[in-house]
Amino acid sequence: MVILGFDPGLATLGFGVIETDGHKHKMIEYGVISTPPDMPTPIRLRNIYSDVQTVIDRFKPDAIAVEELFFNNNVKTAINVAQARGALLAAASMKTNELYEYTPLQIKQAIVGYGRADKHQIQQMVMYFLNLDKIPKPDDAADGLAAAICHAHTAKMSSQFKIK
Amino acid sequence: MVILGFDPGLATLGFGVIETDGHKHKMIEYGVISTPPDMPTPIRLRNIYSDVQTVIDRFKPDAIAVEELFFNNNVKTAINVAQARGALLAAASMKTNELYEYTPLQIKQAIVGYGRADKHQIQQMVMYFLNLDKIPKPDDAADGLAAAICHAHTAKMSSQFKIK
Repeated sequence: MVILGFDPGLATLGFGVIETDGHKHKMIEYGVISTPPDMPTPIRLRNIYSDVQTVIDRFKPDAIAVEELFFNNNVKTAINVAQARGALLAAASMKTNELYEYTPLQIKQAIVGYGRADKHQIQQMVMYFLNLDKIPKPDDAADGLAAAICHAHTAKMSSQFKIK
Repeated sequence: MVILGFDPGLATLGFGVIETDGHKHKMIEYGVISTPPDMPTPIRLRNIYSDVQTVIDRFKPDAIAVEELFFNNNVKTAINVAQARGALLAAASMKTNELYEYTPLQIKQAIVGYGRADKHQIQQMVMYFLNLDKIPKPDDAADGLAAAICHAHTAKMSSQFKIK
């Protein structure tokens, strides 16, 4: 099955696409959807909506995994990311019902095995699971791949997993 | 010109439509877009996106005014509203570039004349400006009308105003 993972953001929204048989995962593609800060917010959100659907149409994933928000102290940033995440979820939800949300804690646990793993450990494990030569850049793209791998592991354990 | 105002929300998203010549305003319609709390968030956001576009297609506004978020202490609520607002802005931005954002402070100032007005004063003035017999219910719909009136007043002052 093909899994598309998203790491939400307004300026930079990361995505990663993997193919998996439930045991082995293969990296198909990763990248970011970027919007410039000097663009009006409604246009940035419109572009995110369109670009998310373009990515979905291109890779036709069997499932989509989206990271939930980590609530930090910067409310303005949280609001920006939440608005971008709203456009992303609306766009993805138009395309599929196979849409799963994972907290940062769940992603860490599914990939490194414990919830207090740091960013570098996550990236090392993403590199390991996908048999890559180097850590995918930027971080947002690696986080998109991490969300996809998280779903591969979680879906397998919870019998949501479908063999192609 | 026809102005459509939105008060963002996840469970209840208010809207109000007015027609105005810059001096007198007439109420065309008001209402809410509701999504049930037991529905998965991506589906709620997808429905908001679709319903916002349905409202826009129905009233064909010359301009759309959207209230910005008031940041309170409840981060979970703020995130929910921000995600809904993201879907709303993406949907509206697909339909028009005549999209304006106003803070709660700007709306209060444009309608009551000062920024510390309470909800009841706003609603009284909405009733007065639109020559209504009673306060529009629910509050979210009245807030949608308030956003539309705010744009009528602001656009007039800032020469954004277009005579039909």
